[in-house]
Amino acid sequence: MAAKKEMDDERSADDLFKEFKEVSITEFFRKNKAHLGYSGKLRSLTTVVHELVTNALDACEEAGILPELELKLKQLGTEHYSYTIRDNGPGIPQKHISSVFGKMLAGTKFHRNVQLRGQQGIGVAGVTLFSQMTTGRPVRIMTGTGDGKVVNIKLMVDVTKNEAEIIETKILTQNWRGTEIEGELKGVLFNLGERSPYEYIRRSAIANPHLTISFLDPEGRKSVFNRTSKEVPKRPTEMNPHPKGMDTDELLNMSKRTSARRVSGFLETDFSRISKAKTSEIQSHVNFDLKKNPRKLTWAEAEEITAAFETVDFMAPPVEGLTPIGAKQIENTIIKILKPEFQTIIERKPTVYGGGVPFQVEAAIAFGGNAGRRTSGEGVKVEVMRFANKTPLLFDYGGCALSQAVSSIEWKRYGMRDFDNSPITIVINLVSTHVPYTSAGKQSVSNDEAVQKELRMALMEMGRKFQRFHSRKRRLLEREERKNTLMKYSSELAIAVAKLSGKDEKMLIDSLQKLILAKLRLEDIVVEQEDIVVEQEDIFVEQEDIAVEEGT
Amino acid sequence: MAAKKEMDDERSADDLFKEFKEVSITEFFRKNKAHLGYSGKLRSLTTVVHELVTNALDACEEAGILPELELKLKQLGTEHYSYTIRDNGPGIPQKHISSVFGKMLAGTKFHRNVQLRGQQGIGVAGVTLFSQMTTGRPVRIMTGTGDGKVVNIKLMVDVTKNEAEIIETKILTQNWRGTEIEGELKGVLFNLGERSPYEYIRRSAIANPHLTISFLDPEGRKSVFNRTSKEVPKRPTEMNPHPKGMDTDELLNMSKRTSARRVSGFLETDFSRISKAKTSEIQSHVNFDLKKNPRKLTWAEAEEITAAFETVDFMAPPVEGLTPIGAKQIENTIIKILKPEFQTIIERKPTVYGGGVPFQVEAAIAFGGNAGRRTSGEGVKVEVMRFANKTPLLFDYGGCALSQAVSSIEWKRYGMRDFDNSPITIVINLVSTHVPYTSAGKQSVSNDEAVQKELRMALMEMGRKFQRFHSRKRRLLEREERKNTLMKYSSELAIAVAKLSGKDEKMLIDSLQKLILAKLRLEDIVVEQEDIVVEQEDIFVEQEDIAVEEGT
Repeated sequence: MAAKKEMDDERSADDLFKEFKEVSITEFFRKNKAHLGYSGKLRSLTTVVHELVTNALDACEEAGILPELELKLKQLGTEHYSYTIRDNGPGIPQKHISSVFGKMLAGTKFHRNVQLRGQQGIGVAGVTLFSQMTTGRPVRIMTGTGDGKVVNIKLMVDVTKNEAEIIETKILTQNWRGTEIEGELKGVLFNLGERSPYEYIRRSAIANPHLTISFLDPEGRKSVFNRTSKEVPKRPTEMNPHPKGMDTDELLNMSKRTSARRVSGFLETDFSRISKAKTSEIQSHVNFDLKKNPRKLTWAEAEEITAAFETVDFMAPPVEGLTPIGAKQIENTIIKILKPEFQTIIERKPTVYGGGVPFQVEAAIAFGGNAGRRTSGEGVKVEVMRFANKTPLLFDYGGCALSQAVSSIEWKRYGMRDFDNSPITIVINLVSTHVPYTSAGKQSVSNDEAVQKELRMALMEMGRKFQRFHSRKRRLLEREERKNTLMKYSSELAIAVAKLSGKDEKMLIDSLQKLILAKLRLEDIVVEQEDIVVEQEDIFVEQEDIAVEEGT
Repeated sequence: MAAKKEMDDERSADDLFKEFKEVSITEFFRKNKAHLGYSGKLRSLTTVVHELVTNALDACEEAGILPELELKLKQLGTEHYSYTIRDNGPGIPQKHISSVFGKMLAGTKFHRNVQLRGQQGIGVAGVTLFSQMTTGRPVRIMTGTGDGKVVNIKLMVDVTKNEAEIIETKILTQNWRGTEIEGELKGVLFNLGERSPYEYIRRSAIANPHLTISFLDPEGRKSVFNRTSKEVPKRPTEMNPHPKGMDTDELLNMSKRTSARRVSGFLETDFSRISKAKTSEIQSHVNFDLKKNPRKLTWAEAEEITAAFETVDFMAPPVEGLTPIGAKQIENTIIKILKPEFQTIIERKPTVYGGGVPFQVEAAIAFGGNAGRRTSGEGVKVEVMRFANKTPLLFDYGGCALSQAVSSIEWKRYGMRDFDNSPITIVINLVSTHVPYTSAGKQSVSNDEAVQKELRMALMEMGRKFQRFHSRKRRLLEREERKNTLMKYSSELAIAVAKLSGKDEKMLIDSLQKLILAKLRLEDIVVEQEDIVVEQEDIFVEQEDIAVEEGT
């Protein structure tokens, strides 16, 4: 109240709250388009490509179709482009088209614990929004599910209502299956740089060996990335959450939605890795009867259950639901593209982070050959390729848990003296039924402890492998040099000795070289023994690394 | 269709879309709480403090009240805390309490072009959500507007409806004005580190000299930051957008909402810096009559207008609407807290970024004294304090435009050899009627070109000022050293010369020292001339800097 006296003209609460209003989610993102990745002329264009490609890939993967995409970007004027993307996916039922493209927070992915690229039901509607915001024009969608009719729709978003506004609908009788999306953008710019649509597509091809995609860029170049594998990735299956790390709020939410009539049944059917045996183990940790109706579960009781989850042992989360790229696939692509001198791939076991969400880290490191990022002027820098659910992350490097893990490693420990300026490419892919992105733009992963630990473990393991390769290489080089010198001088030596001793020169050379080779064989053994030592050191380092992690 | 043959068991579109659902914004943020800054035990706690403090400050500032806040954090168990914040703000009218604390995308700030800390209508409801997600408990709000009744409400958020669920309401007859919020959190952790609630409050005090805030931390320490200025910051006034950089979509939106009956009137009343004269100038650039009804404006016509905006000259955006901290205030705090050897403060002129949004950059650099960040072991590192609308930004350093501007500067050019390891503190505050944050967590600013340019200009100008201080200091030191050496030897010299020449020693010393001082006076003049040279170089560097920017 002291303040009141000091003040001459305060405004009352009622006065201030005259302005009170509600806004729609679309209006919110229209005003905060940077949240969706629409900031900057280059990034905005790449974001559009990102949303269109990931959506097509998800559709194909869910339908079990080998994806074939055609993307076209055409320049219509200064900072004015059109985009067209065509896929061979399952198509979209007519009654859903308007919500998919014209409504935010609506989709098929949000409620399911399934590994997909999209998870929010915002991205594609965001493309419609950004297109109309910059050009005032609708997007055109042509889609067929193979049932003999192809639907053509032009629509815009009614921002205040968060609803599609259908401008035009045409139905053709044609037995085509797939989807084609076309629209225009202004205030964007195309280039071939590190964060361009081209790079986005190149990396998508790297992480999706079963993908065939062609890209016609605004300067008329056509790039085709053919699939290197005809294998359809196993369809992403829904996974029940794992009890470890489950939080009470989520458990309570699930208990309201379950079809089970008893808490015990609820636990056994709606979670992974909870058997009848485990339920009775849980029963022994809680002070109420698990025969209780799940809908009647209280917060306190739910808390008892999550507490029990932490003390009881469960099998690791099931693997089926997670579909990493796969060590073999990554290795093939790396060898094909980078032709490195050394590469190693690590696939960590699936585990969980907060809320019982399963995730898995796979990573690769390539050294030498075309690895690393060429800089203007002969230089080379380390290159880090980030992926989440096989989707390239090109932006927000600094704020991303994947990048932070890389820079948190003391690479010197693994024999990389000048890591930043080495011909090294690191590939990291985080797969999960729910990637904890830092923003709706989905270009950086938030720094969860469990995730960070898995990332570091993978990187450190690769570091140790590199170190072994590196030190062995060094020792073999040294040996080679010694051999050459010795052989070189053996003959001169022989001649000299022959002169002095009067013994036969030829004989001397032979015996000398025999001697040398014998010595070298001895050294080989030493080298091998050293290898064993190195491996022991290695195990030691590994234990240290693990200790470090336990520490964190 | 090729794919179809390869596949045995494809799933149809209708099958896939069985899962189609809509979710509420609260449900969205519940599942993506990292978007709101709820990731990690420490960050989550700081985020709660951030939302509560900024909200109280906004309320006081809008009401024209000198803010007095009391914040308490109490530990209730492991990773279990309670928070209480009390302000002397205007209070909240009863009928709005539930939307403020229990509904997202609802508030008084979204639609107005006014500089406030909050702008999204998400933050406080986010605190309610996070509290109930981690503890299952409601938040308690006590608020009075000074009209003789004080309302006590306990509420939670109904996640599926994005609506408040009132648990309890009590009305007391009492003539108190202010608001007190109380709640509980689990899975969070308190410390005193760089990103802790304590540091958040300390920096809030730095950027808000009119704020008095007391903080009782979980370990029982009470810190009080008393206001250093009794001046109520001028109330943030709404500003019409500036024509420069206005985009067509926004103009069209405004034209539908305007009360003006002609486009000409619409331009003059709904934009800043558009006079009658300017309207007729605009008329000469467009191919339709500005007497037209704004509601009938087409996209093409709106585009003509925005195009005209770019060719016509307008006065810089008005300053009244933007309330920076102020050079004087920043200087006082810096001198008080850091006691530096050198400091300089730059206040750039207000300008606009995309959408005609006015913004302004103020920055300060302090060198020596307590400037910089002390590291474990006597080391010191450069410290960058980021603020947006006087709110500290403690997280997402890497992805923030402010940090990127700092690391984009070649500090060597300005005589800072080892910038990263220097006793330097840089303060940057970006004020705007709409800060382009990268995510709803509002801890980093997205990299807009116009913003980036202003930031760099400010930093480079400070660099030049530092350089001048630095080189002058160096030259004076050199001179001082020379003087001391000369004086030291003058007497010895005199004695020697006296011996040789037989002249009077005393006399020799005098004349020698006269000589030296004369020489030094000469050097002073040289130093001053050098200063002039430096200043000329300085102007040269400045022109270079500007050239660099024009280049970008």
